[in-house]
Amino acid sequence: MSQPTNQSWGGRFSEPTDAFVERFTASVDFDQRLAQHDIQGSIAHATMLARVGVLDETERDAIIAGLQEIGQEIADGTFAWSVKLEDVHMNIEARLTEKIGITGKKLHTGRSRNDQVATDIRLYLRDAIDAVDGELLRLRKGLIELAAREADTIMPGFTHLQTAQPVTFGHHLLAWQEMLARDQERLRDCRKRVNVMPLGAAALAGTTYPIDRHVTAELLGFERPAENSLDAVSDRDFAIEFTAFASLLLMHLSRMSEELVLWTSAQFDFIDLPDRFCTGSSIMPQKKNPDVPELVRGKTGRVYGHLIGLLTLMKSQPLAYNKDNQEDKEPLFDTLDTVQGCLKAFADMVPAIEAKSDNMYEAARKGFSTATDLADYLVRKGVAFRDAHEIVGQSVAYGIEHKKDLSEMSLDELRQFSTSIDDDVFEVLTLEGSVAARNHIGGTAPDQVRAAAQRARDSLTALREEN
Amino acid sequence: MSQPTNQSWGGRFSEPTDAFVERFTASVDFDQRLAQHDIQGSIAHATMLARVGVLDETERDAIIAGLQEIGQEIADGTFAWSVKLEDVHMNIEARLTEKIGITGKKLHTGRSRNDQVATDIRLYLRDAIDAVDGELLRLRKGLIELAAREADTIMPGFTHLQTAQPVTFGHHLLAWQEMLARDQERLRDCRKRVNVMPLGAAALAGTTYPIDRHVTAELLGFERPAENSLDAVSDRDFAIEFTAFASLLLMHLSRMSEELVLWTSAQFDFIDLPDRFCTGSSIMPQKKNPDVPELVRGKTGRVYGHLIGLLTLMKSQPLAYNKDNQEDKEPLFDTLDTVQGCLKAFADMVPAIEAKSDNMYEAARKGFSTATDLADYLVRKGVAFRDAHEIVGQSVAYGIEHKKDLSEMSLDELRQFSTSIDDDVFEVLTLEGSVAARNHIGGTAPDQVRAAAQRARDSLTALREEN
Amino acid sequence: MSQPTNQSWGGRFSEPTDAFVERFTASVDFDQRLAQHDIQGSIAHATMLARVGVLDETERDAIIAGLQEIGQEIADGTFAWSVKLEDVHMNIEARLTEKIGITGKKLHTGRSRNDQVATDIRLYLRDAIDAVDGELLRLRKGLIELAAREADTIMPGFTHLQTAQPVTFGHHLLAWQEMLARDQERLRDCRKRVNVMPLGAAALAGTTYPIDRHVTAELLGFERPAENSLDAVSDRDFAIEFTAFASLLLMHLSRMSEELVLWTSAQFDFIDLPDRFCTGSSIMPQKKNPDVPELVRGKTGRVYGHLIGLLTLMKSQPLAYNKDNQEDKEPLFDTLDTVQGCLKAFADMVPAIEAKSDNMYEAARKGFSTATDLADYLVRKGVAFRDAHEIVGQSVAYGIEHKKDLSEMSLDELRQFSTSIDDDVFEVLTLEGSVAARNHIGGTAPDQVRAAAQRARDSLTALREEN
Amino acid sequence: MSQPTNQSWGGRFSEPTDAFVERFTASVDFDQRLAQHDIQGSIAHATMLARVGVLDETERDAIIAGLQEIGQEIADGTFAWSVKLEDVHMNIEARLTEKIGITGKKLHTGRSRNDQVATDIRLYLRDAIDAVDGELLRLRKGLIELAAREADTIMPGFTHLQTAQPVTFGHHLLAWQEMLARDQERLRDCRKRVNVMPLGAAALAGTTYPIDRHVTAELLGFERPAENSLDAVSDRDFAIEFTAFASLLLMHLSRMSEELVLWTSAQFDFIDLPDRFCTGSSIMPQKKNPDVPELVRGKTGRVYGHLIGLLTLMKSQPLAYNKDNQEDKEPLFDTLDTVQGCLKAFADMVPAIEAKSDNMYEAARKGFSTATDLADYLVRKGVAFRDAHEIVGQSVAYGIEHKKDLSEMSLDELRQFSTSIDDDVFEVLTLEGSVAARNHIGGTAPDQVRAAAQRARDSLTALREEN
Repeated sequence: MSQPTNQSWGGRFSEPTDAFVERFTASVDFDQRLAQHDIQGSIAHATMLARVGVLDETERDAIIAGLQEIGQEIADGTFAWSVKLEDVHMNIEARLTEKIGITGKKLHTGRSRNDQVATDIRLYLRDAIDAVDGELLRLRKGLIELAAREADTIMPGFTHLQTAQPVTFGHHLLAWQEMLARDQERLRDCRKRVNVMPLGAAALAGTTYPIDRHVTAELLGFERPAENSLDAVSDRDFAIEFTAFASLLLMHLSRMSEELVLWTSAQFDFIDLPDRFCTGSSIMPQKKNPDVPELVRGKTGRVYGHLIGLLTLMKSQPLAYNKDNQEDKEPLFDTLDTVQGCLKAFADMVPAIEAKSDNMYEAARKGFSTATDLADYLVRKGVAFRDAHEIVGQSVAYGIEHKKDLSEMSLDELRQFSTSIDDDVFEVLTLEGSVAARNHIGGTAPDQVRAAAQRARDSLTALREEN
Repeated sequence: MSQPTNQSWGGRFSEPTDAFVERFTASVDFDQRLAQHDIQGSIAHATMLARVGVLDETERDAIIAGLQEIGQEIADGTFAWSVKLEDVHMNIEARLTEKIGITGKKLHTGRSRNDQVATDIRLYLRDAIDAVDGELLRLRKGLIELAAREADTIMPGFTHLQTAQPVTFGHHLLAWQEMLARDQERLRDCRKRVNVMPLGAAALAGTTYPIDRHVTAELLGFERPAENSLDAVSDRDFAIEFTAFASLLLMHLSRMSEELVLWTSAQFDFIDLPDRFCTGSSIMPQKKNPDVPELVRGKTGRVYGHLIGLLTLMKSQPLAYNKDNQEDKEPLFDTLDTVQGCLKAFADMVPAIEAKSDNMYEAARKGFSTATDLADYLVRKGVAFRDAHEIVGQSVAYGIEHKKDLSEMSLDELRQFSTSIDDDVFEVLTLEGSVAARNHIGGTAPDQVRAAAQRARDSLTALREEN
Repeated sequence: MSQPTNQSWGGRFSEPTDAFVERFTASVDFDQRLAQHDIQGSIAHATMLARVGVLDETERDAIIAGLQEIGQEIADGTFAWSVKLEDVHMNIEARLTEKIGITGKKLHTGRSRNDQVATDIRLYLRDAIDAVDGELLRLRKGLIELAAREADTIMPGFTHLQTAQPVTFGHHLLAWQEMLARDQERLRDCRKRVNVMPLGAAALAGTTYPIDRHVTAELLGFERPAENSLDAVSDRDFAIEFTAFASLLLMHLSRMSEELVLWTSAQFDFIDLPDRFCTGSSIMPQKKNPDVPELVRGKTGRVYGHLIGLLTLMKSQPLAYNKDNQEDKEPLFDTLDTVQGCLKAFADMVPAIEAKSDNMYEAARKGFSTATDLADYLVRKGVAFRDAHEIVGQSVAYGIEHKKDLSEMSLDELRQFSTSIDDDVFEVLTLEGSVAARNHIGGTAPDQVRAAAQRARDSLTALREEN
Repeated sequence: MSQPTNQSWGGRFSEPTDAFVERFTASVDFDQRLAQHDIQGSIAHATMLARVGVLDETERDAIIAGLQEIGQEIADGTFAWSVKLEDVHMNIEARLTEKIGITGKKLHTGRSRNDQVATDIRLYLRDAIDAVDGELLRLRKGLIELAAREADTIMPGFTHLQTAQPVTFGHHLLAWQEMLARDQERLRDCRKRVNVMPLGAAALAGTTYPIDRHVTAELLGFERPAENSLDAVSDRDFAIEFTAFASLLLMHLSRMSEELVLWTSAQFDFIDLPDRFCTGSSIMPQKKNPDVPELVRGKTGRVYGHLIGLLTLMKSQPLAYNKDNQEDKEPLFDTLDTVQGCLKAFADMVPAIEAKSDNMYEAARKGFSTATDLADYLVRKGVAFRDAHEIVGQSVAYGIEHKKDLSEMSLDELRQFSTSIDDDVFEVLTLEGSVAARNHIGGTAPDQVRAAAQRARDSLTALREEN
């Protein structure tokens, strides 16, 4: 009767799969990226099967040798992928049987594609996380060193994009590094939950073969086998959690990007980005565009989208595995590529940022940035803070009208608003005095910035050792 | 001094682009998909430039001939794409200059890549919309014809996935077609807004050349030139609106898919999907899985994700063009591919759905599905609806306890709860009586279903003619 | 046995609802907002029931009078809402029965809460859409008039937030108004699909009463009754489509807000917002923050979130009504409130924007904003555009090195780069010359801006008449 | 001239805030929820100020006593909130000054609303996390005990919603508990990052007062002060990370809900939910709807929406605080309410789930659920797995045709497909044999389920102690 279309499940079927459906439901175009980890998992599986007596040693050795050859073929680009074989797993298994004969068919004993693919993704993601972790360290290192160099550089601090108070550029850069420090904590927390082994769950209920999951887990470097077979094949939390980490990371990079774009504008002109990180215009010959930060900012949406895509994917799915889950891979892979590209671009670019410290200083001098210092001064003279605030508010109104900054007013002008103001006020109205006075942990005083940079360096060292 | 890296904007730059940045910021890997529409736009642009005297006829003819050859090279797969040339536009222009010499450099007169790419995407999307429109018509046609065939087939209607009232299968299928009818309306509304021409906006402000945008618009079949150059280069509403359309469409397909999956389960067993739309399991030999609806359901998240990705992309972007916008293409292209694949799969599959009408009927007979009919009967006998509801509620409680459906109770049993019940009650308790009684526009009576199918057919005809 | 907990469905139940569950599943806290539209729908339903003979005239009049009184009680704030009665519908019906006795119980004949709530939301949303439509018109009007006033005001146009070419402020404002024009089109397209009547679908299958849905539709101003009862009670497209409209609108407002925030910064200083639209700081006495645009920008996420919330809600729901759908109201209501608040704030604020035209002009003079004009000039002298671009690029590099804008170089300096440059070049290097030269539809020339403003005014008039 | 509108920042302003803007930008309607934590933070701040000599002891005591009275007024509902005073902070401070005079104005020394609100939210969220943690433990406890009771209850396991292999109900319930175990890990990881103190960051740069942040941190139970003042006031990661946790949790609850809804359908009929967790229909008297799981499933979208809302909010925000951030509170509060409501509903309901074990068993007997066991049997007889799969596939095709399950075929019938089948085959084809054979960690064998339940109990105990 039938001419089965697919070696892995054809027996029960009475007509071949529709040609379009075959292509529509196949995953080999994108899941071939898992090939080396699939082979790694299969070698461990075969090793365990031999350990418990399901395979004999000859079978095991033939399977491992065959898989290693296939791994090489794939690495060399000589492997012939077939959409007819649906996915990476069947492509490799079919090639194995082609190479070593009937023994190849024994590899799938005691497992299913359901636990196999979940294992492959976790192995792949674990390696990718380690690569991301390394780039994060490199970027943070670059920020810390730049911050240490710029610990004394004064710039305006903004709230509401209005001049608020003077800060140091180094302090600002360390704010960025704090964001990334949280990201790295989240990444390592996520890794713990990635590093659990589904293999042995088989299709959904476990297997009747006398497998030893602790052996396989140890061979693959997993912390432990997953506790429940139904959960093991239907869980995709790890992909979502990684994408949530990535969304926060990209959000942070988008904030840094926004500031880099602002700072390279003619209006701010706070920094220079080297030409090699910029591009030009096909029509406007004068343009030098901060493409890297713009593009990274743009990629934020991509990662947010993948997060919502994966959350939607899993919403309301009954246990255990459903075909829907095939849609987990592309968003995860693209998130990984995006994260790695953006981190590399930033880690390369950050050390090359050149501060235009004169422009920064000049900008900080404007906009009444030391108004708070004047209020604090008044408090020290015994005025209640709320009243001091009101007094300074009136001085500022006067300053706007007469186009004078606070430090440009005479003592008499200042004393119009409060007789508590004396000659010593001018010291607190300088930018240097203002930043130096914020001298507590977390404050913008240059000494604090240097100390914070040193603490940050130490924590990077600790993270490196932890790995 | 400089060795400029890029022919389109190198003059102002003093160092070549970083190799990684070049790759990171290039778009040619994905925007080459726009090539034929880019050429179409360029031919119209050249034609217009000649019409207004910026090019002479010889130049125009050389450009057009060159572009046509390039179009052929791309179609043949012999075109050599270069990442160094950034994007599809520069790749084609460089090749043109290679082919026809210095005249090729004149093509870019009076335009910029900013308006060019916006025009390309709109041309591409307009064609894609027309293809999607056609598949939507085909799927709706399939649903209407299946509904007409199944106008008398009785199944349980559900609310809260609990048996509610009997309906006909045809009626249920027409509910699906109503969803798609709204989608098609939205698609055509979207097309109106896609079909507006950015070309002539140049970089952002228009151009100093004496262009005639009405000529170009007419040549390209656009309804009108965009009204404002700043808006024209920074607007990506069309991509978002299309993706919002697609999200609603996929949401609808996910609902149909959910029902198809339910109906092919052993528990429901309402329909059969032909083997060619299903796949099996590598470990469980008995499995026949409804992969197509599952996968379509899974793809919903993908499209939702692209929608949120694009919305995020555009959030808070200052005018006019920013590099972020390069990120508009991949989500749009993937949305198009997903929509087309899912619609094709459904349009192929729907006519092959086989109703298991006996199982449907049997299921409708259970679960007190005619309880509302009994309440309505009582109302016709003069009982207020709320009281009738209470009476029937008590009958149902009795039926659950004694494992009897309403139609299986004796008259005496029924009259325990209300003496208004007479012999004529049994007629209203049949499934056929129940569905036939809902005989108004929108109701489930078979005659209404047939009439609705006819109206739906007529509306498809009108839509086809409108095109 | 039982002590039923709920008058509307208790008969079949053997224990009262858990107290927490009662509160958890009740909707009256938020759906009471639909009360007046619920009453409007009920009055039309009763009128129709009397028209077809299901109610007699006395019953109809009693019901209508009772409902009108209840409407007044609600408007007066004297109505006692009860969570025990679950939702707005049962609260009103219970009160009606309390007022007019057993006749009140007849109102629910031939309908269900499923079609009732869908009708209520559509009536409510239709009114809200009309209010939003009016605010959109008002905001657009404000933009157009401001644009017309500022048609000659020159500012730098940006791409990549880098100075690109001079544009007029009026032109920039009209770009904003184009965005809103598309939003308004989408809103009106959406309204068509909102204005369809679910009533008569009853629970899911239609009703056995001889209802006339065309009558009810006409009484309520709906364009037509919904075609399919299953679809009518389970469709929430209208809420999603409105929220998609709102997402695009807020995205546009976020872009305008971003620019307003930039322009009020000390670095740009392009505009002034009146104090009444700003707030200050509790600690920094000099601060004047552009709170309104910031807050509107922040509210973008809220609306995007509601869109994704509603899409997720509907994903994979089997027909027909499920309790999940109760979650449709809060995001829709909050989206409406947000849209109305943001539009009002913008419509009030826009006419009060004060351009600091000197600052704008000065900014445009910098950054080689007329470089493209120089390239175009060279093309007119016979240089191919790509070569002209290279020449100007070199001039700009020279200008950066020597801190001279193009217009500040001597003829000799300019002729270093191309001997095609003559005395007449200085005219094209002025800002006025640059903007005036972009004199085609969509271009930034002041005459074009004035003409565009007039066309926009005319289109508003047409939209007002259409209503 | 000015008549300042706002006591906290009016000095610099020349006109009062627009009435609508005042309402539009005020947050007191929703941030009053932070009142008790605001007071807690202020008391610690005052205590620290006295410790370092900025306040004297009398001032400190007056402030603390005043704040405690205000806390009581708020708890009693007698506090008069004013929109004019913008937010919770100014409302409380104004009342304090009203109560204790000018000393009240000193409380704000050395802090800003920027660090104050960030501190308040973290304190509030920390408490809320602890409450959520407790409910999670309670729900997990309920699942584990139910699983232990149902360790021997056999049901069909599904993949693709098709009958796959028999599993035990207890095993299925433990899959749910595994999901929640990961959620709880994530919640505790999140708590670490919440528990860091922003106070002392002041507006953005730290303060000139000699504050001791370690003292305040210790008084408030924070693990440490935030490292960087700019980051401290602009970081909202904690809200996003909590909402990401909540999204995964709700996703899991939506999967459980989906299954509960399926299982209570007439078609599955696997479980009974007590009436007190269900509601009925206003029109269909027989309905008993699983409202609680449906509503929880519906609430998934709400939380996903808040996640995307918050991510959008923070995208591209330049440092430090912007008004946008006011939009962080409502989504966070609503997420908390939703999580708490859903967990309570589930924790109450789960122990009341009644398994209909006969129906489950009967369902498992159908659908060739032991086909894999037959294939495994053949492998043990020396057949390669892939060949065994093909043989069983053919047996299943035969069974479908002849309407016989595998266990209902005679030995002769089975031997048609493979002569390796012997008399001992029937043992492996029983459901009991099938589940018992999956006897390894993670497998569905009843003994494994009991052991897994015990391990889970132990881990709950450990988590309780950790707290």
